[in-house]
Amino acid sequence: MEILKVIGQKAKKASYELAVCSTNKKNNALEAMAEGLKQAEKFILEQNQIDVKAAEEKGRSGALLDRLKLNEKRINDMAEGLIAVAGLPDPIGEVEYMVKRPNGLQIGKKRVPLGVVGIIYEARPNVTVDAAALCLKTGNAVILRGGSEAINSNKALVKVLREALEKTGIQPDAIQLIEDTDRATAIEMMKMRDYIDVLIPRGGAGLIKTVVENSLVPVIETGVGNCHVYVDNKADLEMAKNIIINAKTSRPAVCNAAETLLIAEDIAAEFLPKVLKSLEDHGVEIRGCEKTRQFYPGCKLASEDDWYTEYLDYIIAVKVVKDVDEAVEHINKYGTRHSEAIVTDSYENAQKFLEQVDAAAVYVNASTRFTDGFEFGFGAEIGISTQKLHARGPMGLKELTTNKYIVYGSGQVR
Amino acid sequence: MEILKVIGQKAKKASYELAVCSTNKKNNALEAMAEGLKQAEKFILEQNQIDVKAAEEKGRSGALLDRLKLNEKRINDMAEGLIAVAGLPDPIGEVEYMVKRPNGLQIGKKRVPLGVVGIIYEARPNVTVDAAALCLKTGNAVILRGGSEAINSNKALVKVLREALEKTGIQPDAIQLIEDTDRATAIEMMKMRDYIDVLIPRGGAGLIKTVVENSLVPVIETGVGNCHVYVDNKADLEMAKNIIINAKTSRPAVCNAAETLLIAEDIAAEFLPKVLKSLEDHGVEIRGCEKTRQFYPGCKLASEDDWYTEYLDYIIAVKVVKDVDEAVEHINKYGTRHSEAIVTDSYENAQKFLEQVDAAAVYVNASTRFTDGFEFGFGAEIGISTQKLHARGPMGLKELTTNKYIVYGSGQVR
Repeated sequence: MEILKVIGQKAKKASYELAVCSTNKKNNALEAMAEGLKQAEKFILEQNQIDVKAAEEKGRSGALLDRLKLNEKRINDMAEGLIAVAGLPDPIGEVEYMVKRPNGLQIGKKRVPLGVVGIIYEARPNVTVDAAALCLKTGNAVILRGGSEAINSNKALVKVLREALEKTGIQPDAIQLIEDTDRATAIEMMKMRDYIDVLIPRGGAGLIKTVVENSLVPVIETGVGNCHVYVDNKADLEMAKNIIINAKTSRPAVCNAAETLLIAEDIAAEFLPKVLKSLEDHGVEIRGCEKTRQFYPGCKLASEDDWYTEYLDYIIAVKVVKDVDEAVEHINKYGTRHSEAIVTDSYENAQKFLEQVDAAAVYVNASTRFTDGFEFGFGAEIGISTQKLHARGPMGLKELTTNKYIVYGSGQVR
Repeated sequence: MEILKVIGQKAKKASYELAVCSTNKKNNALEAMAEGLKQAEKFILEQNQIDVKAAEEKGRSGALLDRLKLNEKRINDMAEGLIAVAGLPDPIGEVEYMVKRPNGLQIGKKRVPLGVVGIIYEARPNVTVDAAALCLKTGNAVILRGGSEAINSNKALVKVLREALEKTGIQPDAIQLIEDTDRATAIEMMKMRDYIDVLIPRGGAGLIKTVVENSLVPVIETGVGNCHVYVDNKADLEMAKNIIINAKTSRPAVCNAAETLLIAEDIAAEFLPKVLKSLEDHGVEIRGCEKTRQFYPGCKLASEDDWYTEYLDYIIAVKVVKDVDEAVEHINKYGTRHSEAIVTDSYENAQKFLEQVDAAAVYVNASTRFTDGFEFGFGAEIGISTQKLHARGPMGLKELTTNKYIVYGSGQVR
């Protein structure tokens, strides 16, 4: 597809300019982008309205409409997000270490941009602004490919962002949008190894799967979270209850919400009825194992599929396990390596859980809901990686960089 | 394929045990492996002889036979390599940092193994031992898939290594060999997302391409190096000549050897005849651009293809460029982002080259031949990454690890 190739070439060219762009210049651009969004509010809302109407006419779900819809507050939030990114430290150019080798070579490991980052996402127009800001701050050119539902909103936003780049002397091709929202175009984008250095899909499990299966560009997988809370036999049960209620109900549709509760059998008789009643009071449907149903009759029976499921909804699977070992085994078998928590007062079991559970974030006595770039203190987040390569867990600015070895010699040969 | 699934399951299981294995235990195993190789020398050489004979009967090239063939010295070198890996610091368990967040959560970033590493390689049996050692040291289980030419050698080596694991109390499934060397089996291995965390191909450009195009497992690309030496107009010409001769001729078949020489036009008349004559004296064929042929008549004319080619041979492409800017542009267009060198006495041009060339290692006044885990002081090398994700440049032990966030709470909810 000729148009994609042109976009790729322009992005690559812009990325070389951006890589050597000063922090001040990048921050000026981010501030101009924020100002631009506010000034173009009317235009952006008009264009967004076209998308919202089209989605309504197609009878799309309320959840999608909510993600799609912009208003004054949301535009203001995006602008504030841009200002916040401008205020973060620029990771580019930092030399992590420099050594002098016996032959006199000085070898330094320097932090540099990835180059061109591709983002494939769904209906949320704010991803357009977030991703563009984080890529710009880290000296990366970005190629955005949002969903068809948000195309008019995305076009409007990208127009405004590019104008701000131009005004502040940065090559506007540093931010480009693929306007053709055909699936075939997205698949084609995933083959652009010559122009895109890294592809980050942001969206549901289906999107992630499509990207992993089709991409020839290296991918960072994000966001599928089948998270567990395990309540150990020596737990503070009041704390355990609070953590479970929070992990399940504070925002069930996000990836760091809990999906399965595991409980040590020693405390099941005492604890299960209380916590399950409380979950039901919060509107949560219980799907328990056979033993769970002995202690809490009447709840649905969980199937094998339930242990694998990321509900993203007011549903929780519940299993009684023998001890921490069985809990670890269950999590490593069924989990998606995102966020896992133990509630315990046992030093030994806490250490065992921290060491043996294979996940991006492992918690003792805290809710899984904290797995997030802002909560971790990164000041920003481009997604939560559930793979082990490059980045694992919340990804901030540093995760949008790579390294280059710089070597200072004085004529050394080998 | 049922057998692959079994291998994958065993590897995954072994990886959980290895992840919590002490450094002492891993080092004991490495030492036992070294001892085992020495004691089984006769058996290994016999099995290797079967491979060598088969390759000879098939009329395979001398270069392949050389890579394939083992002898006492090579077995001894492998054993010494194992002892050296045992002596390196264990990166696993290190907590890179730990912060206390305003809500009291203590969040630490801990270095952990990748899990199961797959290695796909060609005819060199020493990769079997190297890769197994580096994976073991970093707490990773390894699935090895070597070329059909070396299958008997690899079987013998893996048998010896596994016996050493067993003897020292480590689950032998931490090291497994796929004995079926069909291409279809390798392709199947590349789809094993449930069991293999990372795939590292080690071999020529064709192998790397096959893996990138077929793998659903995240890949670290290694080793293709179309490296350049650029001689600036303010260079010490004697130093420049030494560096070029070294980068091209000290070991032309390796990835960090130079393939193209770029020369600033201001010094071409003075420098080109001398350096090209010297290269020819070293047996190097010259393929020059039109301008090169003005200064050094009689050499072959380089085609557009030559600028893209990694010869891995006594051939060099030569181009006269206007200045450092044109050199950077040429390198970023035709290079493979491996190792690039400038020879200059200009501070400004050195900085420009270091900043603007997009490669894993960028040199001022030194040979590209230094890009190597040992030369960089890592004490080991699993390959040289030419991608930007996860690892870039020489990969030592740290590059075989990932991180896990460990979070200590006291009942925090969000």
